Amino acid sequence: MRALGRHVLAELQGCPFDILNDMKKIEEIMVKAALEAGAEVREFVFHKFSPQGVSGVIVISESHLAIHTWPELGYAAVDVFTCGDTVNPWDACNYLVENFQAENMDAQEIKRGTNISLPRVAVNL
Amino acid sequence: MRALGRHVLAELQGCPFDILNDMKKIEEIMVKAALEAGAEVREFVFHKFSPQGVSGVIVISESHLAIHTWPELGYAAVDVFTCGDTVNPWDACNYLVENFQAENMDAQEIKRGTNISLPRVAVNL
Repeated sequence: MRALGRHVLAELQGCPFDILNDMKKIEEIMVKAALEAGAEVREFVFHKFSPQGVSGVIVISESHLAIHTWPELGYAAVDVFTCGDTVNPWDACNYLVENFQAENMDAQEIKRGTNISLPRVAVNL
Repeated sequence: MRALGRHVLAELQGCPFDILNDMKKIEEIMVKAALEAGAEVREFVFHKFSPQGVSGVIVISESHLAIHTWPELGYAAVDVFTCGDTVNPWDACNYLVENFQAENMDAQEIKRGTNISLPRVAVNL
């Protein structure tokens, strides 16, 4: 099945509270995950919530990485969406599991943009 | 099934080239989609690619909205991830379909953070 992109949705559990509540650390890990996978980082934005939790997204040339953390549950929702053939989203995902010290991960890969056809265009005969 | 969040992945097809290639217009539509759904916008970042295409993400208090466009294919990959019960991701999604003038949409909702248990903690007896 032809697809424009691969989107990995990962549930990381059993992560230390202190990592999941440290915005700068999360930003650093996410940027490095993108680079480790060979992606080109374009922009990123992170936000710290009160009393706890961090959300952030990295726009890469190949699509994006996103994270939302619930430190009190040891849980992070991660997505890694890549288009093209040069970057494997699982490389970034595995880097995140290791660096967030997750005890376990459940993940699934969703194909994006399958069977997209060219738009209809008017042709003058 | 208890879940912390709802993540809608939507494939929008048949959208006009000019909308999908206009970064400012896309930013405006995405922010309005978040607000229409009752979300609280925290941060956003958009990027325009050469020769065409736009990627962008809006961090909301309830998680995020993201978009990647392929104007030449009339296609946009959209996600709307919301946690909590106050925002319905389909409200944002339907707003996007209408405002991107999509001829059709295929979408699926993935439950995020299902059956997350509290982390193990040491207890001194």
